[in-house]
Amino acid sequence: MTIPSNSSRPPSVLPSSVLQCAKPLRLTLAQINSSVGDLIGNCAKIKSAWGRFEGQTDLLIFPELALIGYPAQDLLLNAGFLDEAEKALHDLASYGRNYSCAILLGTPHQKDGELYNSAVILDRGEILHHCHKQYLPNYGVFDEKRYFTAAEKQPIIGFRGTKLGVMICEDFWYAEPAQYLKSCGAEILIGIHASPFEKDKITQRQNIAQQRFSENQLPIIYVNQVGGQDSLVFDGHSFAVNAAGQISHRLKGFDEDFLTIRSDELLQTASHEAPLEEQPESLAYNAACLGLRDYLKKSGQSGVLIGLSGGVDSALAAAIAVDAVGAYNVHAIMMPSRFTAQQSLDDAALCAQNLGISYEIIPIETLMQSFMTLEPNTQGLAHENLQSRLRGLILMTRSNMTGAMVVTTGNKSEMAMGYATLYGDMCGGYNPLKDIYKTEIYRICDWLNQTQAAQSAGLGGIIPQSILDRPPSAELRDNQTDQDSLPPYEILDEILHHLIEKNLSISATIARGYDGDMVKKIATLLKRAEYKRQQSAPGPKISRRDLKSGRRYPICNGYNS
Amino acid sequence: MTIPSNSSRPPSVLPSSVLQCAKPLRLTLAQINSSVGDLIGNCAKIKSAWGRFEGQTDLLIFPELALIGYPAQDLLLNAGFLDEAEKALHDLASYGRNYSCAILLGTPHQKDGELYNSAVILDRGEILHHCHKQYLPNYGVFDEKRYFTAAEKQPIIGFRGTKLGVMICEDFWYAEPAQYLKSCGAEILIGIHASPFEKDKITQRQNIAQQRFSENQLPIIYVNQVGGQDSLVFDGHSFAVNAAGQISHRLKGFDEDFLTIRSDELLQTASHEAPLEEQPESLAYNAACLGLRDYLKKSGQSGVLIGLSGGVDSALAAAIAVDAVGAYNVHAIMMPSRFTAQQSLDDAALCAQNLGISYEIIPIETLMQSFMTLEPNTQGLAHENLQSRLRGLILMTRSNMTGAMVVTTGNKSEMAMGYATLYGDMCGGYNPLKDIYKTEIYRICDWLNQTQAAQSAGLGGIIPQSILDRPPSAELRDNQTDQDSLPPYEILDEILHHLIEKNLSISATIARGYDGDMVKKIATLLKRAEYKRQQSAPGPKISRRDLKSGRRYPICNGYNS
Repeated sequence: MTIPSNSSRPPSVLPSSVLQCAKPLRLTLAQINSSVGDLIGNCAKIKSAWGRFEGQTDLLIFPELALIGYPAQDLLLNAGFLDEAEKALHDLASYGRNYSCAILLGTPHQKDGELYNSAVILDRGEILHHCHKQYLPNYGVFDEKRYFTAAEKQPIIGFRGTKLGVMICEDFWYAEPAQYLKSCGAEILIGIHASPFEKDKITQRQNIAQQRFSENQLPIIYVNQVGGQDSLVFDGHSFAVNAAGQISHRLKGFDEDFLTIRSDELLQTASHEAPLEEQPESLAYNAACLGLRDYLKKSGQSGVLIGLSGGVDSALAAAIAVDAVGAYNVHAIMMPSRFTAQQSLDDAALCAQNLGISYEIIPIETLMQSFMTLEPNTQGLAHENLQSRLRGLILMTRSNMTGAMVVTTGNKSEMAMGYATLYGDMCGGYNPLKDIYKTEIYRICDWLNQTQAAQSAGLGGIIPQSILDRPPSAELRDNQTDQDSLPPYEILDEILHHLIEKNLSISATIARGYDGDMVKKIATLLKRAEYKRQQSAPGPKISRRDLKSGRRYPICNGYNS
Repeated sequence: MTIPSNSSRPPSVLPSSVLQCAKPLRLTLAQINSSVGDLIGNCAKIKSAWGRFEGQTDLLIFPELALIGYPAQDLLLNAGFLDEAEKALHDLASYGRNYSCAILLGTPHQKDGELYNSAVILDRGEILHHCHKQYLPNYGVFDEKRYFTAAEKQPIIGFRGTKLGVMICEDFWYAEPAQYLKSCGAEILIGIHASPFEKDKITQRQNIAQQRFSENQLPIIYVNQVGGQDSLVFDGHSFAVNAAGQISHRLKGFDEDFLTIRSDELLQTASHEAPLEEQPESLAYNAACLGLRDYLKKSGQSGVLIGLSGGVDSALAAAIAVDAVGAYNVHAIMMPSRFTAQQSLDDAALCAQNLGISYEIIPIETLMQSFMTLEPNTQGLAHENLQSRLRGLILMTRSNMTGAMVVTTGNKSEMAMGYATLYGDMCGGYNPLKDIYKTEIYRICDWLNQTQAAQSAGLGGIIPQSILDRPPSAELRDNQTDQDSLPPYEILDEILHHLIEKNLSISATIARGYDGDMVKKIATLLKRAEYKRQQSAPGPKISRRDLKSGRRYPICNGYNS
């Protein structure tokens, strides 16, 4: 990764604190993908980077809790695990005793019966400079007060003639820690992070970094974890802010990446800001791919089974699966009933062909007839669910026979409304679309078709256009469309956004200009479907507030307003 | 409820602080069953008690957060809900303006942008004496730091000539708040609680109460919530400690109850301690009944469907369902395959007959044959799961047709080991046995058969004895028993108890004297089944550490020790 030079403009007057840096220090942002609990694997990854950069850097900077992965949840309550983590840290320090470069690393730290979320420098065989997190996030998807003790103000770290101000994730989001570090003489601010992806998070992080810069006039290094962990995706996108307050360096999104920056380079005022080239659709798509890829990898699986319906959700999920594990590892099954349109069969087949995945048709009619012989009164919603459940049964049986994991594909609009069959189309190990609204699904497909257009010339894009053009339908009865039961998705998704992401009450939502009865109906369905969501597969958080650990509602809930 | 008189023994010398009470105060412990979010219903319940005790008491004492129910989870982040709760509190105060008796009530309280877990006294139309919780539990099943701000030391409350020291739940578990209240002149300590049931919790609460007494020599009133809420059961069992430090008054377990105590009565030293008559088996059974009953009631359901297998788990679950909602509301379906023994059919039928529930047999053989025609290679584990899933399909279809909720019956040993079929026997809205080990299931059945023996004379107990005598089997292949795949339950449950409740590492568990390979195998299965548990139905917490909100482990977990 190369950084645009700034030689064409004279440097601005630098703040005095910045000028104090003794001599150029080489700092390497080490954006790695740690696995929760995998001490052996994480140490191997850290050692590999350490060896690779030996001689080329002074300090490798790893993310928050990189030693144990994030979030380790109740592993942090397991004394045996914490002791092994401490042993691993000592082994790591000892491993690097002959290296000239040091590493800065996030690790849990036990002291006087308390547990801290800490950073240490491992330098020439020694563990130096424990500094501890002060602000423990305990909102949204975070539960750090369950595990850690909050520390008081932390001192600066003198490292090879430069004064570093180290902050751990949340500490960076408040003004006080950086200001205190500056008052202690810090010359560079370093944040180590495990910051989960959200659609707007990259902008938020940059805004906060620029706020910290404007308060302190110090360059900033921001190292984020990358990788999927259950329902969270860490997107990487590490960056640096130079002495002009510009985002002068960026690391990749959604992949491991390393970048070495010299402190004198960081201390110059740059004329050029490194642009962010991703757009909302590509970010969401890549987050879903990484979420699925790492869920499979970190749970020891590789194959994917997916039920293709000829609809947009399963088509996008199949594309994501192919990106995650390769077409060779994805098998699609189309399971038509008498209600399945020929167009659906055609579209599913074309989609599988475009993606290069194996494709099979297993009609469910004979099973349905067999069931109806046994339970002849089955009708209405029960009959619709029956079809969905027979499909789930076929997929799960295949999964048990082959070891491939079923990917389930209900989008956020459906999961919010309960427009999904428990133990039917909700069967599966992971749902890459779980936190993506239906209207966003369409936008992502459009984006995907445009970006892939070059590779799939003549096909009209990976996702067949007729899938995008037809009105969405579950095809569980004749002439059904989603809009028989739900408002148009454009309206539904807006209202859901008010109720979920903005956490507005029914009346506050109605006051935004929506039909009162419609808002009440949607809010009621949202509440009623909680029992389904609590039995649903995990899926990557994409929005500001997902429907799992980001929004923790009771199933039994007597609040109706 | 009457209390044994203490007139036969002269009172001991009372501590001076106790003697300061100005005149007898009548205090009523109001152990009510609030519903989370149901402001209208909870207020109606409070008003009803208020009216009933008007003229008979001075102060009605309701549980922690009785106005809104506990735990309200992310409803506490909903500004509209909090505003409505505040309005409801004002309405309630106004409602009681002409009553001579006051109420002490737990309520959320918004102040200066912070939210407190508070207690107020409503007296003659006024809202008086906000006092706020100081210690916010954020461990185990608790997440109060997500919602509330911790308060500083709280003052005593002067009420009609008596100085009351009010504590909110967790504050009672620490020495400092009570000692401070005593130092301020408190004459009676009052704790309002939402303390969830655990097998040993009643003893724990009493021990803490006696600890507080020994530190302060003040009588204590402990009012606990009662009722089920999703995966928690609040067992009531409110009590009072008299001036002799004895548990002098007890309220019912697992039901609403009220008891009025005069302060002079409480200030006497009693010669007699009110005995706790329940045993571990009855406590667990009653907790499961209340959990299921309230889950149904508070989610607006009444009917129960259950798959009877002829095994012990479904038999006990059926008995619990009958206790929860009445035999008339429970329907059992036996779904035999070629692997089902005649004894299982006989036992299931006898069990249904003993319980007085409707019973039906739906063989799954034709469905299996139909499926095997479609997928002829299905064998091994896939074939076993297929049977379980066809049964789930039948139950869920019936559920959709009738509106009755499927009760699922996997015990804690099975849920820990993943010895259950996802989307098969795990289908259901609620699992009353989820946190009860298999060995405990047997003990509860034995207890149940003894207690019910009088009513079912000649039947040998509600649970047919042959169910208890036969080796447990899933009957998914010929001659199968659980012990083909699992260690004997006596050993398994002990090892699981070390790994789960005691949170020991593998090596620490082996050090307790168990076979190393066996412990490693069990720990590995426990870890691997996390993905199933995260898609499982809720069920009541019975143990110290349940496998849901009490033990929050990642699915992707690289820790193997």
